[in-house]
Amino acid sequence: MDAISVIRTKRDRGELSPEQIDWVIDAYTRGEVADEQMSALAMAILLNGMNRTEIARWTAAMIASGERMDFSSLSRPTADKHSTGGVGDKITLPLAPLVAACGAAVPQLSGRGLGHTGGTLDKLESIPGWRALLSNEEMLHVLETTGAVICAAGDGLAPADKKLYALRDVTGTVEAIPLIASSIMSKKIAEGTGSLVLDVKVGSGAFMKNIADARELASTMVGLGTDHGVKTVALLTDMSTPLGLTAGNALEVRESVEVLAGGGPADVVELTIALAREMLDAAGVKDADPAKALADGSAMDVWRRMIAAQGGDPDAPLPVAREQHVVTAPSSGVLTRLDAYGVGVAAWRLGAGRARKEDPVQAGAGVELHAKPGDTVTAGQPLLTLHTDTPEKFDYALKSLEGAYDIAAEGTAYEPAPVVLGRIA
Amino acid sequence: MDAISVIRTKRDRGELSPEQIDWVIDAYTRGEVADEQMSALAMAILLNGMNRTEIARWTAAMIASGERMDFSSLSRPTADKHSTGGVGDKITLPLAPLVAACGAAVPQLSGRGLGHTGGTLDKLESIPGWRALLSNEEMLHVLETTGAVICAAGDGLAPADKKLYALRDVTGTVEAIPLIASSIMSKKIAEGTGSLVLDVKVGSGAFMKNIADARELASTMVGLGTDHGVKTVALLTDMSTPLGLTAGNALEVRESVEVLAGGGPADVVELTIALAREMLDAAGVKDADPAKALADGSAMDVWRRMIAAQGGDPDAPLPVAREQHVVTAPSSGVLTRLDAYGVGVAAWRLGAGRARKEDPVQAGAGVELHAKPGDTVTAGQPLLTLHTDTPEKFDYALKSLEGAYDIAAEGTAYEPAPVVLGRIA
Repeated sequence: MDAISVIRTKRDRGELSPEQIDWVIDAYTRGEVADEQMSALAMAILLNGMNRTEIARWTAAMIASGERMDFSSLSRPTADKHSTGGVGDKITLPLAPLVAACGAAVPQLSGRGLGHTGGTLDKLESIPGWRALLSNEEMLHVLETTGAVICAAGDGLAPADKKLYALRDVTGTVEAIPLIASSIMSKKIAEGTGSLVLDVKVGSGAFMKNIADARELASTMVGLGTDHGVKTVALLTDMSTPLGLTAGNALEVRESVEVLAGGGPADVVELTIALAREMLDAAGVKDADPAKALADGSAMDVWRRMIAAQGGDPDAPLPVAREQHVVTAPSSGVLTRLDAYGVGVAAWRLGAGRARKEDPVQAGAGVELHAKPGDTVTAGQPLLTLHTDTPEKFDYALKSLEGAYDIAAEGTAYEPAPVVLGRIA
Repeated sequence: MDAISVIRTKRDRGELSPEQIDWVIDAYTRGEVADEQMSALAMAILLNGMNRTEIARWTAAMIASGERMDFSSLSRPTADKHSTGGVGDKITLPLAPLVAACGAAVPQLSGRGLGHTGGTLDKLESIPGWRALLSNEEMLHVLETTGAVICAAGDGLAPADKKLYALRDVTGTVEAIPLIASSIMSKKIAEGTGSLVLDVKVGSGAFMKNIADARELASTMVGLGTDHGVKTVALLTDMSTPLGLTAGNALEVRESVEVLAGGGPADVVELTIALAREMLDAAGVKDADPAKALADGSAMDVWRRMIAAQGGDPDAPLPVAREQHVVTAPSSGVLTRLDAYGVGVAAWRLGAGRARKEDPVQAGAGVELHAKPGDTVTAGQPLLTLHTDTPEKFDYALKSLEGAYDIAAEGTAYEPAPVVLGRIA
């Protein structure tokens, strides 16, 4: 077995054999297959595809490259969620404690933001004292005592995926559905959750720009989860406009706490409850009422205990950016479009995201929305507020907002896009 | 400008801009674009192609990555030849002194063998004392005093191509016509020859397996040469069976000397004279008679002076392999097929070629043919003799000869394939 013959098979539109897949993933993890060989293979996969059999084997090989966690000692059923990433997507923050309050255990291994999409760990790190890095024992302890834990995945989980993900990021091979699906699912299956709900984002602010691609990705991942004994469901949800009214780290934590306090923007509440219902259903928890758990403060109780168990102070004031810049409405009328990608890039440029893995993020940076599509606005009223510690970036961030919103004449009919576009199980 | 956006352009079937091409070749040469990025780009080029404009710019950028040589001080017109590589293809050895004997100057920068095809430098290095590495001054001196020189290309010539060629070799991206054409032509144009004849091989023993691909490669290269002011002609020639009766290093030198002495196998003589006529014509030399220069010993005189000028002893006995193994004809009849690829792989496995660039080759190893397609053979007569210093490789070499020849009933009509299949100018 050698790397060139594996590359040639896929280059020439052949099907990779189970032996070829097992060998190439293992040899790449061990460093025997070089980065330049794996990137040529990744490009061949992106352009020539993999069938379901190949994707399943590829995922299994990545799981086998590392350790598997085991939550079978817990008294509650486990449920996890994964979002393919969007702008203003803070849903994990209220969702994990909410589902725990309703009776499931939520082991939520999360990532950091890359590009224009935010990362759950970056958001939570804006809470003074909170720690993302836990040992496996600490993770299990937080999960047992509070019902939920949100933390970084350990280095032992699917190391082949870690290496391949970093390689794809610099070689233009991120956007391959077989590689996206196997990357997400290898980590989630190795993590050992009993059930999984996937939030597959569609629209300008997502990696999948159209519903057909999103549907293919979703059904590929549902198939992989099911094959590995994980009850898996996917929702296709809209990412043409930001979720809620904030994109940034501390800004999104603040909004999440509002939702846990029974308030918050309608779209965030709707999606949080929809995903909670799917997770509880997948985990087999009956008769739970997520809306009630938000209203009666029980979800907030879990949040406070979960944050405190990881060293965070839930009562500490959140960081605020040093400078603000307000963008006002240029005309009066109906806001018919506010583009998720434009807002996401602006937040990223203001300091909420990072260009390279090793860059730091600003806790207070981001974009605050004062109107959402469908709202009536008046010329001169605040539309967006930009927050940053580095005001020299305002001009650069404003560039990404040029053409990012449309205001139509007053009285124009506006049909809001549904939050949930489809469901695959 | 960044590597990912260049990769994405080609990945998404776009046309690379001149600025993108110039940047990526320069940045790759300087090490700013990483090997794993260039290999992803090479795979995208292999699968999605490049148009004539892109190939021309890519070639120009590779030329610009290094120095250019200049033979304008010579009193004679210069003519060079390049073969895309085959089995038993020793033509450069008699051809360079023959064309010099007819009045042109032949600066022949050659390479080493890789895979199942032999390399001109490896063959000449079986002559005791002969040196492939010359300084630019030494090269010019040999060329001026003998009329021909065959030596290794210096490190200063198209360094981008050197780096990219080594990368393609290990990433399954050798077989891309735009990359093959630009690799060959960047070196030949940088070398500074006034005219160039390309010998594009077609058949099992060549990189191009069918005439359509060979024709596309040939016309791409002729276009590139012409655009850069080099008078360029291509012959498409058969490589379904080995050229001549030997494949190996010293074995092929011996056969070349036979041709220079006025003998040798008919196909080698025919192709040598055909290419000599094209080179002399391209260089503008009138009234030369290559057949006469072989018969009257004037080509042999140049050969002896050229070998001696590079430290070689033209009268020294050539190395002979320690062990021989004879393959006999299993039945009587007409030999209708003797596969070039099978013979090439056998010679390679016997030690005539190398698996990796840094491997040594055996001077005496190779395969000797006792019959060619069209010949009548008798059961039990020698068909092939295998030569090696490492007899433990006989079995491995014999495996590549299984199914490599067909013997039909006596009297079966056999239509020989022509040596020259086409011409593109």
